[in-house]
Amino acid sequence: MLGNTFGRLFRVTTCGEAYGEALQVIVDGVPPGLELSEKDVQPDLDRRRPGQSKIASPRKETDQVKIVSGVMDGYTTGAPVGMIIYNVDVLPKHLAQYEEDKDLAIPGHADYTYFVKYGRFRDWRGCGRANGRETAARVAGGAVAKKLLARKGVQVVAYTKELAGVRAREVAFEEIVARVESNIARCPDPEAAEQMIERALEAGRQGDTVGGIVEVIARGMPPGVGDPVFDKLSASIAHALMSIGAVKGVEFGAGFALADKSGSATNDVPYVDGERVRFRTNNAGGLLGGITNGEDIVARIVVKPTPLISIAQQTINMVKMEEVSLASKARHDPTIVPRVVPIVEAMVAIVLVDHMMVWRGYSAFVEEG
Amino acid sequence: MLGNTFGRLFRVTTCGEAYGEALQVIVDGVPPGLELSEKDVQPDLDRRRPGQSKIASPRKETDQVKIVSGVMDGYTTGAPVGMIIYNVDVLPKHLAQYEEDKDLAIPGHADYTYFVKYGRFRDWRGCGRANGRETAARVAGGAVAKKLLARKGVQVVAYTKELAGVRAREVAFEEIVARVESNIARCPDPEAAEQMIERALEAGRQGDTVGGIVEVIARGMPPGVGDPVFDKLSASIAHALMSIGAVKGVEFGAGFALADKSGSATNDVPYVDGERVRFRTNNAGGLLGGITNGEDIVARIVVKPTPLISIAQQTINMVKMEEVSLASKARHDPTIVPRVVPIVEAMVAIVLVDHMMVWRGYSAFVEEG
Amino acid sequence: MLGNTFGRLFRVTTCGEAYGEALQVIVDGVPPGLELSEKDVQPDLDRRRPGQSKIASPRKETDQVKIVSGVMDGYTTGAPVGMIIYNVDVLPKHLAQYEEDKDLAIPGHADYTYFVKYGRFRDWRGCGRANGRETAARVAGGAVAKKLLARKGVQVVAYTKELAGVRAREVAFEEIVARVESNIARCPDPEAAEQMIERALEAGRQGDTVGGIVEVIARGMPPGVGDPVFDKLSASIAHALMSIGAVKGVEFGAGFALADKSGSATNDVPYVDGERVRFRTNNAGGLLGGITNGEDIVARIVVKPTPLISIAQQTINMVKMEEVSLASKARHDPTIVPRVVPIVEAMVAIVLVDHMMVWRGYSAFVEEG
Amino acid sequence: MLGNTFGRLFRVTTCGEAYGEALQVIVDGVPPGLELSEKDVQPDLDRRRPGQSKIASPRKETDQVKIVSGVMDGYTTGAPVGMIIYNVDVLPKHLAQYEEDKDLAIPGHADYTYFVKYGRFRDWRGCGRANGRETAARVAGGAVAKKLLARKGVQVVAYTKELAGVRAREVAFEEIVARVESNIARCPDPEAAEQMIERALEAGRQGDTVGGIVEVIARGMPPGVGDPVFDKLSASIAHALMSIGAVKGVEFGAGFALADKSGSATNDVPYVDGERVRFRTNNAGGLLGGITNGEDIVARIVVKPTPLISIAQQTINMVKMEEVSLASKARHDPTIVPRVVPIVEAMVAIVLVDHMMVWRGYSAFVEEG
Repeated sequence: MLGNTFGRLFRVTTCGEAYGEALQVIVDGVPPGLELSEKDVQPDLDRRRPGQSKIASPRKETDQVKIVSGVMDGYTTGAPVGMIIYNVDVLPKHLAQYEEDKDLAIPGHADYTYFVKYGRFRDWRGCGRANGRETAARVAGGAVAKKLLARKGVQVVAYTKELAGVRAREVAFEEIVARVESNIARCPDPEAAEQMIERALEAGRQGDTVGGIVEVIARGMPPGVGDPVFDKLSASIAHALMSIGAVKGVEFGAGFALADKSGSATNDVPYVDGERVRFRTNNAGGLLGGITNGEDIVARIVVKPTPLISIAQQTINMVKMEEVSLASKARHDPTIVPRVVPIVEAMVAIVLVDHMMVWRGYSAFVEEG
Repeated sequence: MLGNTFGRLFRVTTCGEAYGEALQVIVDGVPPGLELSEKDVQPDLDRRRPGQSKIASPRKETDQVKIVSGVMDGYTTGAPVGMIIYNVDVLPKHLAQYEEDKDLAIPGHADYTYFVKYGRFRDWRGCGRANGRETAARVAGGAVAKKLLARKGVQVVAYTKELAGVRAREVAFEEIVARVESNIARCPDPEAAEQMIERALEAGRQGDTVGGIVEVIARGMPPGVGDPVFDKLSASIAHALMSIGAVKGVEFGAGFALADKSGSATNDVPYVDGERVRFRTNNAGGLLGGITNGEDIVARIVVKPTPLISIAQQTINMVKMEEVSLASKARHDPTIVPRVVPIVEAMVAIVLVDHMMVWRGYSAFVEEG
Repeated sequence: MLGNTFGRLFRVTTCGEAYGEALQVIVDGVPPGLELSEKDVQPDLDRRRPGQSKIASPRKETDQVKIVSGVMDGYTTGAPVGMIIYNVDVLPKHLAQYEEDKDLAIPGHADYTYFVKYGRFRDWRGCGRANGRETAARVAGGAVAKKLLARKGVQVVAYTKELAGVRAREVAFEEIVARVESNIARCPDPEAAEQMIERALEAGRQGDTVGGIVEVIARGMPPGVGDPVFDKLSASIAHALMSIGAVKGVEFGAGFALADKSGSATNDVPYVDGERVRFRTNNAGGLLGGITNGEDIVARIVVKPTPLISIAQQTINMVKMEEVSLASKARHDPTIVPRVVPIVEAMVAIVLVDHMMVWRGYSAFVEEG
Repeated sequence: MLGNTFGRLFRVTTCGEAYGEALQVIVDGVPPGLELSEKDVQPDLDRRRPGQSKIASPRKETDQVKIVSGVMDGYTTGAPVGMIIYNVDVLPKHLAQYEEDKDLAIPGHADYTYFVKYGRFRDWRGCGRANGRETAARVAGGAVAKKLLARKGVQVVAYTKELAGVRAREVAFEEIVARVESNIARCPDPEAAEQMIERALEAGRQGDTVGGIVEVIARGMPPGVGDPVFDKLSASIAHALMSIGAVKGVEFGAGFALADKSGSATNDVPYVDGERVRFRTNNAGGLLGGITNGEDIVARIVVKPTPLISIAQQTINMVKMEEVSLASKARHDPTIVPRVVPIVEAMVAIVLVDHMMVWRGYSAFVEEG
């Protein structure tokens, strides 16, 4: 496996599988003097962990994080921050279940591609690293990034925009911040949330699953961040978000709706607001030429319905190369959308810190005045 | 500026501005023994260049490419392939026009973000490197990638799926290949193409522009390619495509339509087809867990309407910090969607070559048997 | 801090300080199917750990490694291998000692540069990550690399070539392998070893320290490995070796002795040996144009005398900016040269695996025949 | 071929062969507002080019550089600086000569390793990219780096320390700067220079070649630059210098002489000099723990005797796999040491700019005060 490190200057490296011993994360590029303890990291882990609600997987992981390096007397030292999260809910009965089905490809899951790529030695216990469990390490890294962004007045917030066909109405940023944690759908529109939860529960009762859309907003970014060719900030964010399992699309600002619009209708008009330049609309999602324009960065991802369902499906035995029927007995989530919310925030925060560092680095030789 | 290199093992580095002297591209990672000449690169450049049709910019660039290194006696030597494309249509009257408006932010364009980032020394001649002209270098690099992919039986084809609200009907892969170049919309559905062209012309007559959707398909990829965590093949392709100017979203397979679907309805069912595993549907767009599953890779991007229009718009003078009205007199495209088609193919081809190399590299120590 | 990841495809990322909680290492790029357990890693850690002999630091670290990810049922799965080593010998009295002197710059040590770079939040407990303790994580990563190299018949062996002015005589490769662990100097020439130990002990008795030279040989590398411009194999090895604390120089083959030689005297003459090409001498140290030629890779590094001594030295209080005298009471090594031996092997092994992977990756599109 | 890009934020990418059409270099990371023209680059190219003196190769390359992107109205724009250098002295008779001997491995040269790596398609015209000609592109990139360093008061100077066994006496920095160009040996000690030239000429008359040592000094670096684990500044410089063809070793400060010294004799003692910390000696070569300490960075490399000689040598025909005698008729340098001087400066300058940018980037989130 490759690609377990993300970022250029601010770099997050992770390891760990669904049913292995532990997850580790090493966050490089953390400056000295940031107040940091497990208390800063745990809340986001708690928002991501299984067993948190009736629409999430019943697996019981506590996701207790321990910082083992990079912090002394409550402050970062400049050394890489190392963290470890031990897996605790790894029972023999679960492993036995996974072992029984290990030659079967769960439709929509990565079993088949892992089988092709890593062969018989692959970790078939919950599909190892293809399991969403690896994202706990991302969330831990993202918590550090968020604390850094707070120093610059940048806030990254995500929420469930759509679930099982129910779409939240437009909600102001402050309201999103205030209400996103007020329900288990992580949707700041309470009416929509209620319906979302109902539909997810109904899907769960049927052994089925539902997909949705998560929107993420980064407020407070200064204009000028992002590298305008291959490493546009939009490209980096897309990379980061598409790297989350089950994500099948990403869009910025007006996104796919721009396909049948005209330039005159969608160009955001700039205006002068005191010392600042602002824009009357935000179809661009805060990014022009891949560089922040000072408006909110707004992106949305689509999360496919969790592939693991308990309804019987046709599939194959990959070793015997024959077709079989599979009705999974493994624990699963009726929907993972609300759990994806903190992961999205984490990945966006990591990208923003990295790009802000790179920008500052690039400016090292710019002459003042 | 940073981020002018793309790729890990197969790397494309570019430079050059809209109205500078020349574009250069250096393609690293090209193996020895590939038959290569300008004739392999020119056709894709011709598909991208301005002045090619009545719905493209009237700028007259010949985009003649010259290979200056890495090729001897008609074959690559293993050394990086260096290419240069001189700009020829850089007339004083155009530069004078750009100079006149250089302090104004064209709405929807990167003038403002470049102004913030690079200040008064930035290249304001057609916005320098934010101009689509830089993509000629990408296309040159992509042409090399496509030739390599052909060796493995991989074909990358893109086409206009939607333009100005007109959507092409579903067309079989072979038909796309056969017909994409048969009209200036690069749409293999001739009826749709006709309407698309009409609408683009109409927008052009009004001094306006239109957006659209480009779909890209890669056929022939072996299963197993892609790194399953941060460097999922889907993440790398999203990065590559989002790095193209004017692209505001990307989706794979069923994409955003998955938001209101259930797992039971969208999981692709695998089956045994002789020696191969295949899937009865392709909602996954050929990628499971970020790794190819052997089906076609299918992605779509949304291209925003070109921001440069000749209709008067409100904007600002960035130096004087005051609001002004601007009706651009610069040459522009009623739509860039058909010109984006070869760029999309180029970027996808570059990513696929890179990931196939990385996979092979990763496998260096795998024991046979 | 940055730069805690090493390698391109085979990547080792580490964290952890001298007196922190633990060291973590994440090894990315490990293929599936490699038999691996703590038993493969522990021996090299034991060769590196303090307290192993009377010429090493008396600190009592057991350096017990625990693999927490990437291995299932005794074999690697393809997922990154995560390991953790807890620090055990962190006593209050040591920390109190470090705290007392924390504002003083130990001459020759990184206190001053860390103070400038990381300021008052830096980890002053044994200088944190500047302490040689971080190399335990490298050695753990290197043990994985060595097992991979063994699959290809490549062997990496280092030994003490010179210590405190005593130089070992030329010893054949097989003898080095057989004897390097037979004495605490890690010198395969027993007479020299005896003198080396004596001089190190004498230095230790005086509160002083001594430097030396370590030679490393990699046997069995196929010809053709290394990238001939910026990433010559020699450049990568030099980078890797110079990244070890206390190393102040590196040379290959005849090295600095080439300065006053002629081309006719030092060119290695190739000859045909059955199916193979070999060379009559090895002044090149196995590398021509930065690429392996099939002969042994031979490199040497110079290790400066450990800067931490107990003899009183003039130095400064960095906070008060005044000059003071310091006679360190911290535990230290009379020489670290024998402990550097396994670190050198580890770093060279990591580089070789990485370059072999990259070469294979580069060759993915080479046509056979 | 891979590895034709060097640097993290400040990145130099090159292509071009000894007898190809042209060399190209793309310098990414150049900030806007740097006054730059060909006049800034040409002088260092002239110091490197062949035909400059009677102890250099008689090949007549003018090495005229043309900037094709990244500069407008005499100032950099922030876009990558693209440059091209056309080869002019590529005569049919030279190519015919190379072709005649193309199956022979010149001893000490990279023919054999290129043959193994790139096979029959490799560029055998002067060994293509293994030829020192590629370094012209490095020097062009380095000239930009030097101009940036000058803004920070950093000066990088190299000179011939030893040639053919003749060693220059110690010379003060200012004298080196003043005198290094006063003779064709690039040695600031005139007596030594005279002997060096004599010996090189004598070697040339015999068809032989000589090696030497180049010392490089960077003055004015602020303390705190360099990443203390894998990317120590010393490691990056070693990587950069070892990537220059013919370099077989690198050392810093007291270097290999530290092997038989004691800590008490070689630790550099810090002292307070007004607001600054300085050191009474510089055995460390300006680097502690891989980080600058504010003293001069001092490094030395050994350059092997140019392998191409006209004395008959035994070698092999690589295709026929049989031994032959070769007395090369190609143009060659009696010594390349004086020509390596500007290349060393270029590579060190590139590394310093890159590390200074990375440091600034890392500091982006450090809180003031």
